[in-house]
Amino acid sequence: MKIPEKTVRRLSLYYRCLYFLSQQGAYNLSSKSLADLLELEPAQVRKDLSYFGQFGKKGKGYDVLELKNEIAKILGLEKGRKVAIIGIGNLGNALLSFKGFEVLGFQVVAIFDNSPNKIGKKYHGKICQDISAFPAIVRREKIDIAILTVPTESAQEVARLVSNSGIKAILNFAPAHLNVPKGVAVSNIDLAVELKSLSYFAGQKQ
Amino acid sequence: MKIPEKTVRRLSLYYRCLYFLSQQGAYNLSSKSLADLLELEPAQVRKDLSYFGQFGKKGKGYDVLELKNEIAKILGLEKGRKVAIIGIGNLGNALLSFKGFEVLGFQVVAIFDNSPNKIGKKYHGKICQDISAFPAIVRREKIDIAILTVPTESAQEVARLVSNSGIKAILNFAPAHLNVPKGVAVSNIDLAVELKSLSYFAGQKQ
Repeated sequence: MKIPEKTVRRLSLYYRCLYFLSQQGAYNLSSKSLADLLELEPAQVRKDLSYFGQFGKKGKGYDVLELKNEIAKILGLEKGRKVAIIGIGNLGNALLSFKGFEVLGFQVVAIFDNSPNKIGKKYHGKICQDISAFPAIVRREKIDIAILTVPTESAQEVARLVSNSGIKAILNFAPAHLNVPKGVAVSNIDLAVELKSLSYFAGQKQ
Repeated sequence: MKIPEKTVRRLSLYYRCLYFLSQQGAYNLSSKSLADLLELEPAQVRKDLSYFGQFGKKGKGYDVLELKNEIAKILGLEKGRKVAIIGIGNLGNALLSFKGFEVLGFQVVAIFDNSPNKIGKKYHGKICQDISAFPAIVRREKIDIAILTVPTESAQEVARLVSNSGIKAILNFAPAHLNVPKGVAVSNIDLAVELKSLSYFAGQKQ
């Protein structure tokens, strides 16, 4: 059964919420409370979870720790996914300097660029590899997720290379809409798009 | 008239697309082509633009440069919005090292934290200020947009302080859902949520 991308994304939000609640010592939660915390409808929460089985008890709600662990299992969070960063420019470097990946259970195992000035050089302790070696390194290192921080002009071409290498999940920071084959998921983070939308709201009078 | 947040966000995507097309020398574009490039419906594009007036000509499409400039005006992109970053931890530092803000026309004018170890120190050339001085500095520096890179536990409290200081636009990197007053727009970027969703798709067989 194909699960909608939006459902998977919300699962990730439920996980974040449950993780935080469990840390605060909460042990029980209704679908209404979970929905309220995220400004969603309770029916939405129940529908999303129903794709994966039966959680919680009628009138009793969810066990916080149990549901958190079940969602972790669904998302494969215990798997320690391996990540490659492609494009070691300004943004790629900023990302590499971010120490949060390991904390989140993700491991940056390889970094790539196509510039002869960068290939072979070390960035934050990792040697930049030639993008043309990407397919071979994906197989050898069993890379799960590719993070794209390449210029707009090359984004689509790199996305094709990444998809053809068997990668199923792309986190795209390039300011471009990527066309990818079915079965490949793309999440887009574009700081410029977010800032430019916010520019509109910054200019609104109350 | 209140414009839907999603419309504003799409305007920012149209702008990105038109900017790139104009650089490539395109001068004319139909709503269908623009929609196709972003995997949207042409009617959606026309509806979004209709909030702001009459663009393009029946059967002739849009003038690329003209529409790009009109959207820039709507979003206030020529205004040079001033940005504050709150929370100078790992992620805040990575963001500060990102040189793209100026290129995008945004200016980081102040950075804040609440830790005595950080206040008064320089980070990437900017002196970290005490968060308690935030309202006064917002007024003095005419800050438009606040970027939140604070821990989950303090995110809601900081969002309240920011909203009360008259800021209308928040870019939230904290892994928390923020409740803000009406008239304040929040864009959320949560690397963990994106990576955790992608972890699911990385584990799917074709």
